[in-house]
This record gives sequence, structure tokens and C-alpha cells, in this order.
Amino acid sequence: MGRIHNFSAGPAVLPQEVLEQARDEMLDYRGSGMSVMEMSHRSKEYLAIIEGAEQLVRELMGVPANYKILFQQGGATLQFAMVPMNLLTRPDQIADYILTGSWSKKAAKEAKLFTSGVRHPASSEKVNFTRIPRQEELQLTPDAAYVHMTSNNTIFGTEYFYTPATGNVPLVADMSSNILSRPVDVSLFGLIYAGAQKNLGPSGVTLVIVREDLLGRKGGLPSMLDYKVQVENQSMLNTPPTYAIYILGLVLQWVKKQGGVAAIEGRNMRKAARLYDAIDQSGFYLCPTEKESRSRMNVPFTLAKAELTDTFLAEAKKAGLVSLKGHRSVGGMRASIYNAMPESGVDALIAFMRDFQARHG
Amino acid sequence: MGRIHNFSAGPAVLPQEVLEQARDEMLDYRGSGMSVMEMSHRSKEYLAIIEGAEQLVRELMGVPANYKILFQQGGATLQFAMVPMNLLTRPDQIADYILTGSWSKKAAKEAKLFTSGVRHPASSEKVNFTRIPRQEELQLTPDAAYVHMTSNNTIFGTEYFYTPATGNVPLVADMSSNILSRPVDVSLFGLIYAGAQKNLGPSGVTLVIVREDLLGRKGGLPSMLDYKVQVENQSMLNTPPTYAIYILGLVLQWVKKQGGVAAIEGRNMRKAARLYDAIDQSGFYLCPTEKESRSRMNVPFTLAKAELTDTFLAEAKKAGLVSLKGHRSVGGMRASIYNAMPESGVDALIAFMRDFQARHG
Repeated sequence: MGRIHNFSAGPAVLPQEVLEQARDEMLDYRGSGMSVMEMSHRSKEYLAIIEGAEQLVRELMGVPANYKILFQQGGATLQFAMVPMNLLTRPDQIADYILTGSWSKKAAKEAKLFTSGVRHPASSEKVNFTRIPRQEELQLTPDAAYVHMTSNNTIFGTEYFYTPATGNVPLVADMSSNILSRPVDVSLFGLIYAGAQKNLGPSGVTLVIVREDLLGRKGGLPSMLDYKVQVENQSMLNTPPTYAIYILGLVLQWVKKQGGVAAIEGRNMRKAARLYDAIDQSGFYLCPTEKESRSRMNVPFTLAKAELTDTFLAEAKKAGLVSLKGHRSVGGMRASIYNAMPESGVDALIAFMRDFQARHG
Repeated sequence: MGRIHNFSAGPAVLPQEVLEQARDEMLDYRGSGMSVMEMSHRSKEYLAIIEGAEQLVRELMGVPANYKILFQQGGATLQFAMVPMNLLTRPDQIADYILTGSWSKKAAKEAKLFTSGVRHPASSEKVNFTRIPRQEELQLTPDAAYVHMTSNNTIFGTEYFYTPATGNVPLVADMSSNILSRPVDVSLFGLIYAGAQKNLGPSGVTLVIVREDLLGRKGGLPSMLDYKVQVENQSMLNTPPTYAIYILGLVLQWVKKQGGVAAIEGRNMRKAARLYDAIDQSGFYLCPTEKESRSRMNVPFTLAKAELTDTFLAEAKKAGLVSLKGHRSVGGMRASIYNAMPESGVDALIAFMRDFQARHG
């Protein structure tokens, strides 16, 4: 079978040329006589790989000089704990968590292990997380240690299209599912983290971008969980996930070749607009999310005839369109259309949806 | 350039057929139309991969039914913290750490963040860690929460050839650098952990084998750092390092094809014996470690004419024998000859050493 169109929410589709390069370099990385997987992380060859990846993050995202870049392990879920461990200095300090879905709830839950002061400036739970709260709805705590947001919600298909103004309070963002999908002003954030397995590469590596003044607030942390120690060791306190970082570097090179993040954003806007339009105009498919909050990355939709859901998924799979099943908390379908999903993949999905409607509508 | 002989201490050489298979399956895993890197970790295909890997660990190591197997992130260094976090219930509880090198010292250091009761039943630091303390030297604490050991010491080239008897006190072992290199009676241990990047696969995944009764001793831990939560979620609390686990599974299949751990041990014994004999009989090369404690995995050696060290390393590299530089705390050379180092690689190193001696001796 050839390559199919993979709409998985993550791990997700990777650029085909990245996979081809990884394949070609698997047994012998550029004349080194070994695979990247076999290289000492302290070797000259590998240092060039990890430093190149860091440099590309800095370049593509326009990371200011007073921010450090880390490659960590443990996914966003470990960051849910590391953020409060590192940024809170008292067990009753206020931490503001904006609730926009399952992931922000999980992040807040971990924070509660470290402070009795977790507050929610806003929550869209009452409307089943179908929208993002507006700036004017945020009841922020002026002296909070930080404000936490989830910039894109994979399950509910919503996304922030503004950056909350938090005054002097550092803004912390889980950008796992929309990082590098559009330009972001990093200087508005105190800390950004992102599991790689949607827009950056394979699972097993987590990008952290942290403003220098937030390092070292708290002592006595386990070495692996202390951002300051990790920065001092340039993500090499111990052996980093070397191969995952190598693939991440290849993905960043691919983004650059596409014209950078702004060009990627243009393509993502086209892909999302085309798919949402097809849904809205169908009279057959429904999208549960508020229009102003609709994610460009994850598009949930249901069928007016809900009893056809399994048939839709089965026929889509036969047509080479896979991993379209929606999360159980939303139901129906979800098409994740991250950076590496080509426009032709979205077009193939829309064509299939029209054909399915013609046959079952 | 073709494949060279890579004596790196880790990440380290992998079986060539594992890399070939990974290469061949890179763009299309067995007709799925996608790379393993792109698969949802909850997909049928991926569940077969991770469950297959777990099953092979159980089979190859003879893991008893009352032990759970986890694939974690963060390397042994995160385990240095997770072990005391999970196994200590009081901030003054005794934890016995046998000191046999840098890694056990680092493990003990992390434990001190969680208890004032870290003790050392024995240490070989006074002899620069050139030997492993014997059972009769161990001054164990009868009511310790656990005893911690490092079963093989990559830097100093020593290895335990007995399993410390600790009575009712659970024995915890960092087996990162000799796991699967020889049969081990898992039932003698309470918990075993091992970063994958020496004998198991690529960096970025850590194997943990834990006895059920040790789970849930301590509440209020961050989810990612709680063995009980990880067990309840079958290593899938969040997205695991999917590709690293896939490669680990291929390495386990390779071990099985070699005849299993006992057959691998036979080969490892031959490789180590041949190399140590060549050193001892040379009158030109020296090995600093006590004979009874010599590691089969990491063979440190120096030159009687120390001033030739750089020449040795440069000429070895030209001969396709790389990553032989010793750790700075020992100096000289170190040949890491893990499972995947073929006998021909050791033979090539010995031939080079003889030739070098003939020219410079």
C-alpha cells in the first residue's frame, strides 16, 4: 500500500521528504559510518544536530535573546508539573489557569499538587469547551505567579486567535498542538512548551522556551525537573532523546524550505477555511465550535445523521483517509490538519465527504 | 564511507539488521501507509508494537507475573528522583546507596532531596571505583526503605557479578549499561530501571520493571512521576516515545533471534575475555580495574606510554574504530562492547592494538 492521508491528532503525519531523508541516512549519517541513533550525544556530529535544531527554533519563531530553548522529555504532561514546581515559590501562591478543555484541566490538576491557589480566570466548560474566552472575560489575578493557557485544544477543536494580556504576570502557554502553525510574538510569553508530536516531529521530545528571569525561582528540585539546571547543561544533563531531536531538526528545515512560519500559516488558513466551508455549506455535516474560536489544526465535525458515523469512518478508511474518529467527549469525526498535512489531503477529504453525502444524504 | 566500529558508551551501536528494518519500514510500516512515527499511540498497529515489546521484555528476562513493565521518559537520571519519590514515605527514612561510581553518586544525590536518611553500605571511591564491594563488605541497614545499586559502571568499567542479598529490603538496580547482557533473576529485585541507549535501543526511552507491592506507597505525586499511575495507564498516561519503543522492540526481537539472553551472555563473555587478555598480555596496555570486578560492557585501558594516547585515538579513528576516548575521570581509552558490538568489532580493535604496539611499543 502507498502512503495514506493520516488525520491523527498526534502523533501525526510528518513531511514525506523528512521521512525519506531519515530513511536514507539511517545506516550512515553523512559519512559518519553510523546512524544518528548510535551517536554519542557529546560527539561533534551530534552537537551540530542539536545546536542546529535550537538555532532553527530561534530563527523560525523569532525567539528573543533573553529566552532559553530546551529539548526535554516527558511530553506536555511532565510540563504540567514542572511549570508549578519551577514557578511557584509558596504553597498558597496564586496560579491562574484559563480552562478551555481537557488539557488545561489536566495542567491545573497537576498545579494543585503544589499550591492551594489555583484559580480560573475563565472557563468555557459550561458550553462543552466549544469556544475560547475573550480577553474581556478573563478575571485575572494581578499578583498571580503566572497565567496558564492552552493555545489550541485538540479535542474540542478551538484555538486562541489573540494573546491574553496579563500585565506583569508571566504568561505560560501549552502550544503543543499549534506551535509553528502561525507566527507568535514570543516576547509576550514567559514560558512556552510543546510536545513535538503534532507540528514538530516525533513523540518523545518536548520543546520549552523560557524567559531567563523565570529560571532559578525555586531551589531543591530534582535535577531533571529544574529548568535552571537544564539550561546550564544545554538540555544535556543526561542523554537527550537524540533521534527525536534529529527528526525535529529535519522538520524545522522543512518548515524553513516552505517559506517559514508565515508561509505555513497561509497554507494552514487555506486548508482550514476550505474544510470548515465544506462542512458549513453541506447541510449534512455539523461543526460544534463557535466560528471565531475554530482551530486551524483540529476540525471536529459530526453527521446530521449520527447513525452513519461508523459507516463514514469505515468508508473513509477504505478511501485512504484514516484516524478520523473524534474524541469520545465530542463524538463524530475529527480531522487533524497540522503543518505536514498537504492541501491535497484536505481536498481528498472534502471530495470524499461530498461523495459520501451524495450517496447517503 | 561504510559502517564503522562504534565503541561509544551510549548512545551506542545498534544491530545493523535493526537499522535496516527501520529504514525499510520508515515510510510505510507493514502496509499501514504511514511511518511508526506518525501513528496514533492508541491505534491498533501501535498497540501491537508496544505490547509486543513489553511481552518480549517479560519473556527474555523471565519477569515474574507480580512485576509490572513500564516504558518511561527522562532516562536513568529521572529515575534517580522517581525512586525516592515513590519508595520513601518519610523525610528521614533510610535509603541505602552502594557507591560504585559517578552514577550511583548522582542517584544518591537526588535521593537526598527527599530524605535526610541516605546511607552508604559500602563505597569503592577510595580506590577510584576500580572495584565492586563484596557482599560481606556491605553494611546494610535492616529497616531501610530500599537498597540502591548500579549494576554496571560505564565510566570506571566495573560490574557486579553477584546480586546483593538484602533480606526483606527491596533491592533497586540501575541496570542501564548491562541490562539484557546476561541472565538476571528479576525476583531478587524490587525495582529495575535502565535507560535504553546502551543495550536496548535509542535514547529517549527508559525501561522500568517494578514489583507490584512497591506501587502506591506515596500519594500526591505528579502523575508522570507516579509509578502507580503509569502502571494503571500501561505507560500511556500521555503519548509515549513511540518510535524509540518501536526500535527497542526490534532490538528485543534481535536478541531473541540471537538465541536469547543466555546466548548473548556467552558472546559477551568471549568478547570481554579476548579484549582483557589482549590488554593484560601486552605489557603495553593497562587496565585499571580489579580482575574480579571487570565489566563485560565497558573496558577502560591506558597506555604505558600515556603520551601516545592522542596518537592512538587518531590512528584508531582512521582505522574505522571510533568513540574510544576514555572518560576524563579515568583517562586513556574505553571500549564499550555492548550486545550489538559484533565479535568482529572486538577482533578488529585487538588487531589494531597489536599493530599500534608493534609500531610504537
